[in-house]
Order: sequence, then C-alpha cells, then structure tokens
Amino acid sequence: MANADTLSVGLFGFGVVGEAVFRVIQQTPSLAARIVKICIKNPGKPRSIDASFFTTNREEILGNEEVNVVIEAIDDADASFEMVSRSLAQGKSVITANKKMLARHLPELIALSRKTGASLLYEASCCASIPVIRNLEEYYDNDLLVGLRGIINGSTNYILTQIFERGLGYAEALRQAQEKGFAESNPSLDVSGQDAVNKFCILLTHAYGILAQPEELPFTGIENIHPIDREVALAERSQIKLVANAIKLPDGQVAAYVLPSFVKPMELLSRVHEEYNGVVITSALTDEQFFYGKGAGGFPTASAILSDLSALRYRYKYEYKKLMMQKPSNLCLDVELDAYVSLNREEKLPAGFFEETYEYFTGRGFHYRKGRILLSKLMEDHWWKQDGVSLILM
Amino acid sequence: MANADTLSVGLFGFGVVGEAVFRVIQQTPSLAARIVKICIKNPGKPRSIDASFFTTNREEILGNEEVNVVIEAIDDADASFEMVSRSLAQGKSVITANKKMLARHLPELIALSRKTGASLLYEASCCASIPVIRNLEEYYDNDLLVGLRGIINGSTNYILTQIFERGLGYAEALRQAQEKGFAESNPSLDVSGQDAVNKFCILLTHAYGILAQPEELPFTGIENIHPIDREVALAERSQIKLVANAIKLPDGQVAAYVLPSFVKPMELLSRVHEEYNGVVITSALTDEQFFYGKGAGGFPTASAILSDLSALRYRYKYEYKKLMMQKPSNLCLDVELDAYVSLNREEKLPAGFFEETYEYFTGRGFHYRKGRILLSKLMEDHWWKQDGVSLILM
Repeated sequence: MANADTLSVGLFGFGVVGEAVFRVIQQTPSLAARIVKICIKNPGKPRSIDASFFTTNREEILGNEEVNVVIEAIDDADASFEMVSRSLAQGKSVITANKKMLARHLPELIALSRKTGASLLYEASCCASIPVIRNLEEYYDNDLLVGLRGIINGSTNYILTQIFERGLGYAEALRQAQEKGFAESNPSLDVSGQDAVNKFCILLTHAYGILAQPEELPFTGIENIHPIDREVALAERSQIKLVANAIKLPDGQVAAYVLPSFVKPMELLSRVHEEYNGVVITSALTDEQFFYGKGAGGFPTASAILSDLSALRYRYKYEYKKLMMQKPSNLCLDVELDAYVSLNREEKLPAGFFEETYEYFTGRGFHYRKGRILLSKLMEDHWWKQDGVSLILM
Repeated sequence: MANADTLSVGLFGFGVVGEAVFRVIQQTPSLAARIVKICIKNPGKPRSIDASFFTTNREEILGNEEVNVVIEAIDDADASFEMVSRSLAQGKSVITANKKMLARHLPELIALSRKTGASLLYEASCCASIPVIRNLEEYYDNDLLVGLRGIINGSTNYILTQIFERGLGYAEALRQAQEKGFAESNPSLDVSGQDAVNKFCILLTHAYGILAQPEELPFTGIENIHPIDREVALAERSQIKLVANAIKLPDGQVAAYVLPSFVKPMELLSRVHEEYNGVVITSALTDEQFFYGKGAGGFPTASAILSDLSALRYRYKYEYKKLMMQKPSNLCLDVELDAYVSLNREEKLPAGFFEETYEYFTGRGFHYRKGRILLSKLMEDHWWKQDGVSLILM
C-alpha cells in the first residue's frame, strides 16, 4: 500500500454484508480506515446513507489513486474476479468473501498478488467469523496437521438441524431457512454441496498447500437424504450432517471430500447446531482442536472483513507457506471409507461399487447397504448422485 | 535472529514438556530447527537420548553464540526469569510456557524484548494447544471484543468433572487427577486458582492491553466447594466450573476475575469436560466464538511451542497492539454481579457484603444466600476465601 497509515477503502456492493462493513468501519475509529466510495449496481434503490458515497461507475474505485484497499462484497463471481484481479494488478490490496470466485481463480490471484505485492485476504470466505484460514496459515503451518473436518455451510446445517432435532420435512426446513435468511431464494449452491466444496478448496490450500478445483473432490449435498435415512441415523443415536473432511495419509497425500456423514454424539461436530459452523483440526500432537462460531450473516462476515482490514495496517499477507515453502500435499482418491447407500426403489448398484458389503436392508419399499467403498469410485461416475439415492459416510 | 534460516535451539529442561519438544523437533524436518544443547539440573537421571546433548552449565546455552533461540521448559519461575531475561538481553529469541513467571514479569520482559529486538513468544503458557494468544493478538485486535470467558485450568476442570459427572468427593477426585498426571503432587497452585489467574493476566494483556498483576484480580479456586453446593447446582441443572471472565464495560473499562461459577447447560463452557480447556470470545459483531482443545500435557504444550518456533522462522513478534497502539483498557471493580455464598456453619456475613440479598436457605447445618455483590467487595477483605465459605457466581 502507498501509505499504510491510511486505509482508504473502495467498497463494491452494499447488500447485507456491504452495509454491515460500512457500519462497522464507521464505528471503529481505532482502525483509521475511511470509506472513499461505494460502487453499486442499482442506483434507484433507497439507501440509508449519504448519496455522495455511491457510484455506479467502477472506475471511480478502480481508477482512483487514493483508494489503496478494495473490499469486494458482491455475489456475482465473474464480476468479482474482474474487480479483484484489476485491483491487485494496480497494487491495491483486496479483501473478498467470494468463495465461488476464489475456489475458481485462486492460483491466478495468488500469482498476481505476488507479482504486484498487493495483499489478497479472504478470511470471510470460509466460516465467516471463525478465523480458520488465519489459524491454518499461521498456527498450523507445520507438517503435523493430520486432519481437518468441519461443518462449513450454515444453510444446510440449519436445514439438517430442523430435520433431525425438530422432525421437520426437508421442504419445510428449507422454507424456514429461506424465511430466516440462511438460504438464498435459489438455494441450489448450498443444498447441492457446491458452496461447501468451494470453501473446502480454499481451506485445503492453507491446510496442505493443495490448489484443487471443486470438481476434483467427491462431493454432494443434502437434497437426497430420505426420511428413512433419518430413522436409521436416530436408531444409532447419530445425526446426519454435511461434513467436509480431509485426512492426511501416511504417505503424505491427502484424501478430501464433502459428503453427508453420520455424526455420533461423542463427536465434536455433533455440537454444531442451527446455522453455526464448526471446524475440528487434528494435529499429531494435540488431538483435536475445535473452532466454533457463526458461519453466515452480515455482521459475522463483516467482522472477518474487519479483521482482514485491520491486518492490512500491518501489511499482513498470506504467505501460503505450505504451497511455497514446503512440499505441497497431493489429493489422493485411493482410500477406502465406510459408507451407507440407500435407494428408494429396487435397483442393482453398479458392479463393484462396494469393495465389500457387510449389511443389507430391504423393507417398506426402501433398501440400503453398508460397506467399504473406494473414494475413487465416487469420481468414476455420478450414479450415486441421482434422485432417490443417498450416500452417507459412516 | 542472526540467521533466520537456521533455528539453533538451546533447551532448558528435559521433563515431560522438554522431552516432547525435543521429539517433535526431531520429527519435523520442515522446521529446519536443530537442538544444540539441553541444560538440565540433575545429570544423574537416566536419559533416553545421547548424553552429548546435555549440560548442567547454563552458560553453554546463554553464552553460546550459535544458539539463537532459547526454549525454556522448567518449573522454577525465578530461574526461568533469569534465563529468559538474560537470553532476551543477548538478542536470543525466547519461547516459554512459564505462566507464573510471565504473569509476574511481563512488563519488564516486553520492555527488554523491544529494546534488543529479540522475540518473546509464549503461546504454550495459556491453554496449551489452543492458539488463544495468537488469535487475540492478531485476529481480535480491534475494540469490538466485548468479552473473554474461559476454562483455562485443566486440573481443576478434571477434578470438577469427576465431582459433577461421576459423583466423586473432592479428595478422591484430586487423587485421581494426580494419578493421571493432571495435577502436581503439590496441587495448590491449581486448586487455589493461582494458576488460572496467572494465565488470565497474560490473556488480558493480549485481549485488552491490560498489564495486571494476579493480586489485582478477585480470584479463588475450588477447594471450598461443598457437596451441598453441588446439589444446589444440579437442582438447577447446572455445573460448577472455575471460570475466568472479562467483560468490557460500556465506558471501555474491563471487569475481570477468576471464580467458581454456575454454568448452565446452554452455555458453551458447559461442554468443556475433563482436562480440556475452552475459551469463548464474544465480539460485538459475531456473538460467540468458541475455541476448545487440550489445555495441558507434554505434547499439547510442545505443539504450541513448536508453532512459536515455526513463527520465529518468519521473525514473528507479538506487537501488543492494544497496549502500544491503542488506548489500553483499565481494570474496574465497580461492577455488580449475581453471587451465591454458602457457609457450613451459622455465621453472619460481614455487614454490607451483599448489595441486595434475594434468597436465603438454611438446613442440614448449611446456609446459603443469593444476591448482588460489588466486585470491589471481594478485594476489600478475603473473608469469603476462608475454609467453609464458598462463593460461586451465578
């Protein structure tokens, strides 16, 4: 930054997050940060603050030499990428929460940031208020991180909580999540697992130096969980949660996926209810560390953005230590897991889908099997993602 | 450091923590750290590693120009202070877990570290494996931190877990804690609350820029908790835990103490069992964040030391932002709290001890009151710390 003593901020977007960022910066004089301009799409909307802040012309931020920090709080991933990459190219530091954009473009953005020396921070992109990226980057920067397991999508966790703890059906639970603002009017990014896998790609970069595209990970969402799956879980005193999991294998490679999983009452993740997020970091030395907090919402997200802004005062940058300075890990699919697969119809599973099957159930027009599967099978075809099929890890 | 590419370590102490540090450094080649010398007190003890590592002469570390990092893992706080301050004075970076020493000498050590530019890190001193200091320092470095509440002593939490969940008596619970290595053969530092208040002083520095001596905080331990206190708690579906608490008041001052407290099942701290620690950080924006992990033991402590060592590779220093760059908060005792006070005998409370009493109980030779007390009353005399009196916050 030209002058670290003044953070002159250009803000893109004035939705729930953008407005919360604005309010918080106004209320935090110790930051010595100042909003110079706010770029919005729709000039007709009534706004709660002085009109002179607003512009619809992005050049008033991108082309403004006074602006040394760009905060990007818009939904559109393509527009986000353009603004973030142009800002970095000009040496402006950038703070973004756009996980979809980051999961797609992280390698080029890291290269750009290294080239111009501008900092790119995005703590708010994963688990909002939980400082998980900074902790992975700074504190677990050794090779002793054996596992990373988390509930990193608040909408699906809210929906599953309603289903498991309140006995609601999926449709009603989804409706309530939308009503409370935990799910978008188009919730497909959340319920398909896409949002969680986007975030997990970002976390894998900081945990293990892995730069993966979301398609490289087996993942699915919660849409196909059947009421009888719930009964099976409850009979075993478990819940079903959408779990992102990474396991470091003895050879140093990492198996990673985002899949519905049975979570037993003893597990730390069983304590993550409603729209909250939780991450369990397992290291060779300390057993389990648990980080828990609000994973979504305007102020939790603004809080993470604020911490990034504050870090810019000290010229903080992610160092991507595990990517740059150690030997990065590779993704590995050659791993066997215990899984449960249910079907709401009589149908043969593809030959060899299970390495070994050790439990069958048929009844009430419903069928399930339990056995060992190879993670790589989940990438070979997407048979298990179709309607009426539910795959849940055990 | 002379050369950040090589961490040449002098280690003081080869007990549980020291040996774990040694093992972990040997097993982590990516650290590029090397143990040069280990200073021990008792040369006669059989050791598991090559004798050439050891010396009983501290000058072989303090006077060794090759050593640029000193790791101090001894019990004795006075000897610790001497080694830490001499090392810093010579420009050697220091990593210590000695909370007793730090709580006593932090101001002078900070000054010394600033003078010579040597880094002093001590993540392991509080909550072992939970990176609470680094998070307070780096991530919650704004003025929006409204509260810090934690279980920060593993021994007492282990004892209280046995009493509350297994129905053991205090003496038997303490015996088991000692047997399992969670309490020292002289457990008074733990059960008196002294260890917890030492740690809390360190945390207050990083949370609020407060440099307090332990005596400035109202604190006590768990020795006087009476079996009927347990019954009262269980009747209200609560547990009693030793809680360190800091609340930022509307005027910016901070009320802080370490006292037994009733913890309701809804509270995050109710989930902290056995020897674990947990810290809840409340910020104005994110509600509650919860950090949970092992608070004691050789490897959890070594893990925190390892993270500090790793941070030294990047010349990391605590910046004490809230102390140096913002207006530090002050401790304040002018705050009313809800408290329960029980006595195992008929005795009048000192006049005016409660501002207001709203519940009395007498029966089975046991008496308790509930009411509002001023925190400052707890500093005026120590009547409430005597045998047979139990003060528990509600």
